[in-house]
Amino acid sequence: MGMENLRVVLVATRNPLNMGAVARAIGNFGAGGLRVVQPYEKAFREARSAVGAAAVLREAEECATVEEAVADCELVVGTTAIGNREIKHPLRSLDKAGVVIRRRLAKERVAILFGSEKKGLSNEDLSYCHWFLHIPTRGEHPSMNLGQAAAVCLWELVRGARSFEEGVKKGRAAKMETVERITKYLLASLLRSGYVAARSERLAEEKLRRMVRRFALDEADGEVFLGMVRKMEEGGRGSGE
Amino acid sequence: MGMENLRVVLVATRNPLNMGAVARAIGNFGAGGLRVVQPYEKAFREARSAVGAAAVLREAEECATVEEAVADCELVVGTTAIGNREIKHPLRSLDKAGVVIRRRLAKERVAILFGSEKKGLSNEDLSYCHWFLHIPTRGEHPSMNLGQAAAVCLWELVRGARSFEEGVKKGRAAKMETVERITKYLLASLLRSGYVAARSERLAEEKLRRMVRRFALDEADGEVFLGMVRKMEEGGRGSGE
Repeated sequence: MGMENLRVVLVATRNPLNMGAVARAIGNFGAGGLRVVQPYEKAFREARSAVGAAAVLREAEECATVEEAVADCELVVGTTAIGNREIKHPLRSLDKAGVVIRRRLAKERVAILFGSEKKGLSNEDLSYCHWFLHIPTRGEHPSMNLGQAAAVCLWELVRGARSFEEGVKKGRAAKMETVERITKYLLASLLRSGYVAARSERLAEEKLRRMVRRFALDEADGEVFLGMVRKMEEGGRGSGE
Repeated sequence: MGMENLRVVLVATRNPLNMGAVARAIGNFGAGGLRVVQPYEKAFREARSAVGAAAVLREAEECATVEEAVADCELVVGTTAIGNREIKHPLRSLDKAGVVIRRRLAKERVAILFGSEKKGLSNEDLSYCHWFLHIPTRGEHPSMNLGQAAAVCLWELVRGARSFEEGVKKGRAAKMETVERITKYLLASLLRSGYVAARSERLAEEKLRRMVRRFALDEADGEVFLGMVRKMEEGGRGSGE
């Protein structure tokens, strides 16, 4: 995966809850570490000393400058609101950025920078970046919460490697014998209840047969369902006597 | 896209900050609406009346039961920690789930359910679901924050539709004439400074020529860089006189 080669860099973050949320996302999805550049001191102390603070946060490295925070990295990516387009630098949507970052993480150290809650990354911060990453949001509500943005970025980097489907294929399909007995019991019940008139029995039976087959019952469910309709049929007949 | 066909359903949420965060994620990525089932009343009132509360939250529909919250939907998906595997229901990682949900959203209404912060969805809640969705996290830190989980799910649903790359293709490559002049100016400077000894000039020139070409300068950067090295060469010659 190479996620251990990733450094998440928070620049001038102010809110301790956001720092905690970024650390939690790192805990969930992995990353080699968290670096904080000129954090709002009080926030950093609060976040670090909070009960249950993630180990990620306690072990976060504090850096004086962006330069220092990215010094040992081979690729530096800045997250940015679309507003910074005027800068002549490549800009990729997160999904496209993820492809490049994953490839680089396989053998190199990559830093992803997140700016402050109010102002994002400054032009000076961005000048340390090879290119920019943008999470495409709706025009009406473009601004993401820092903790949510970090979670979304980290998910994008791991999503392909953690893919699975379980139990999606149904078990063996029910045997037609079971399906047909269900059909017969239902038909008998519908006839007796008057839902199906005797003169239209033939048509009703065909329609019912098709419907029951559309249910695509699996073997186990088929047996259970057969037990149910048989009991209902018996019960109905009993009360009718 | 069909995101307007999506209903995000929060069941028994307790923390108003989390409700606010889910609403914010809906604002960022879109969704047809937010429904809350048996929210912790105080939390719901607080979240709704908070200054700057998203319109999404103010317009959230309050439902008495999960049954009511999903009644008008064609597909119901429950988010779950992997712990609920024992239930014989299909379980998909978010990326696989996204494929199915996007397809259904094109013409049907889909509900995604999120359970309470502490306990997630109950087995009863889950019994209203067609299948379950899981965000694969690391074993050491499996539990995600509700707001972050919602943001990650919504991003997964929109990511493909909002893809772009800008400025990634460099401009025209610099002309070889420019590149060669840069090489020559650098070489002259290195010779004068003593970095390259006169007797190894030929070998140094070849190495330098190859290195400058590896820089893959584009046209505009090439011109600027040429201006720089020329000026440095002139300056160096001046001070040497």
